[in-house]
Amino acid sequence: MDDMRDPVVYTPPMPSKPTARSMVRPRSLRALVFDAYGTLFDVHSLVELCEQIWPGKGAALSQLWRAKQLEYTWQRSLMRRYEDFARITEAGLRYACAALGLQLDEERRRALMGAYLKLSTFPEVRGALAALKDSKLKLAILSNGSPAMLRPLVANAGLRGLMGTLISVDQKKIYKPAPAVYRLATQRLRVPKTAIGFVSSNCWDACGAKSFGFRTFWINRGGTPVDELGAAPDHVIKSLDELPGLLRRPVS
Amino acid sequence: MDDMRDPVVYTPPMPSKPTARSMVRPRSLRALVFDAYGTLFDVHSLVELCEQIWPGKGAALSQLWRAKQLEYTWQRSLMRRYEDFARITEAGLRYACAALGLQLDEERRRALMGAYLKLSTFPEVRGALAALKDSKLKLAILSNGSPAMLRPLVANAGLRGLMGTLISVDQKKIYKPAPAVYRLATQRLRVPKTAIGFVSSNCWDACGAKSFGFRTFWINRGGTPVDELGAAPDHVIKSLDELPGLLRRPVS
Repeated sequence: MDDMRDPVVYTPPMPSKPTARSMVRPRSLRALVFDAYGTLFDVHSLVELCEQIWPGKGAALSQLWRAKQLEYTWQRSLMRRYEDFARITEAGLRYACAALGLQLDEERRRALMGAYLKLSTFPEVRGALAALKDSKLKLAILSNGSPAMLRPLVANAGLRGLMGTLISVDQKKIYKPAPAVYRLATQRLRVPKTAIGFVSSNCWDACGAKSFGFRTFWINRGGTPVDELGAAPDHVIKSLDELPGLLRRPVS
Repeated sequence: MDDMRDPVVYTPPMPSKPTARSMVRPRSLRALVFDAYGTLFDVHSLVELCEQIWPGKGAALSQLWRAKQLEYTWQRSLMRRYEDFARITEAGLRYACAALGLQLDEERRRALMGAYLKLSTFPEVRGALAALKDSKLKLAILSNGSPAMLRPLVANAGLRGLMGTLISVDQKKIYKPAPAVYRLATQRLRVPKTAIGFVSSNCWDACGAKSFGFRTFWINRGGTPVDELGAAPDHVIKSLDELPGLLRRPVS
């Protein structure tokens, strides 16, 4: 709980536009840390199963489930009522089903929660991670997911050999974007924050990581605006397969 | 920043269903504290102005603006990058306009931010507050809004004579549902938390207040499910005009 004693820092806002690529020195990075849900793993790969169970409702359920899951991480963190991500995820599912008038019995609950351990990766993930692993950078995941969710997720996707370290916020009992979570990665990897590149498709997560002091890469798959959180990501890429090339660019 | 030193409390979950009305003793209450935005004031009363500026886009803009405004309060609180609610509200507006492809020039920005100081109250608010004031309870607002937003908002709605104290989270530099915010009300009103009734239409806010220790009343105007945050509101009412009658009920 050391994070809860951090002073509130009144820093001037960081530049609201990502800096030009030529301004960064990716070669100074020693580790790449990835967000899991939404970044490597497609949380909406559940739409198909949702659709099988409740035809016509799959997309709406998946959207509301994800939205509530995230809200609950922020609200419970602020309330000081941490619960692990499996329970938060299930609470989001229960809410979303209730809101959409869908009957969630025990069998359906078990099927959907089980599917959360077998989410698909985005198509380019395996190839990009393999290329990045060849570059000798330490690779790690830093996720809201509890260890009991993350381990089977990574194993089921066949990424265990590519990803060195799995780091869960569960150790800190608070969720992203609290600074204590990002600090955990520096502690576990023993790499200073200025030498860590952080990769997320969740813009607020990239902003949180930037605010903490990581070099940040936002994968903007949806072409949405940068979140207005006073700390914009350093780089914006469209998919993970841009990253190996970006890191090989000569320093200008 | 005293709140940031609170230990994380691992309490067993509170009952997930609101308790029966007969179980509460509303007569023991000495103060009623109201949320402002969404509870007394309709944030979507801006739809009309949005619609005038961008025909066909009013509802979508109003929804996304509000959603981002709330997200930013949670995310910035966790990031330790507090900014006051006027700036958060404007950031939410900029994001929403960018996401929807709407051109926000200086004149439109000023018109919309100005309108945030003149939000309509829900139809029953004035009558219900007048009835509650007659009951000798202390009435107060506890809001995310900064003092510079709250004062004109209450004055423009003609509620200044009904509402005793305006309390802003700005004093704590953190947003709801952090316990420090709710504690502020006990300090400002000099009433113990068990003697404070807290009223909000935002379910997560009512849950946060319940988790802190207030007697809570959730105004569920939209008929949505209770949020799954481990601390359900004590009472669920459909509109504010149910409250005076509820508080007059004999203790059973």
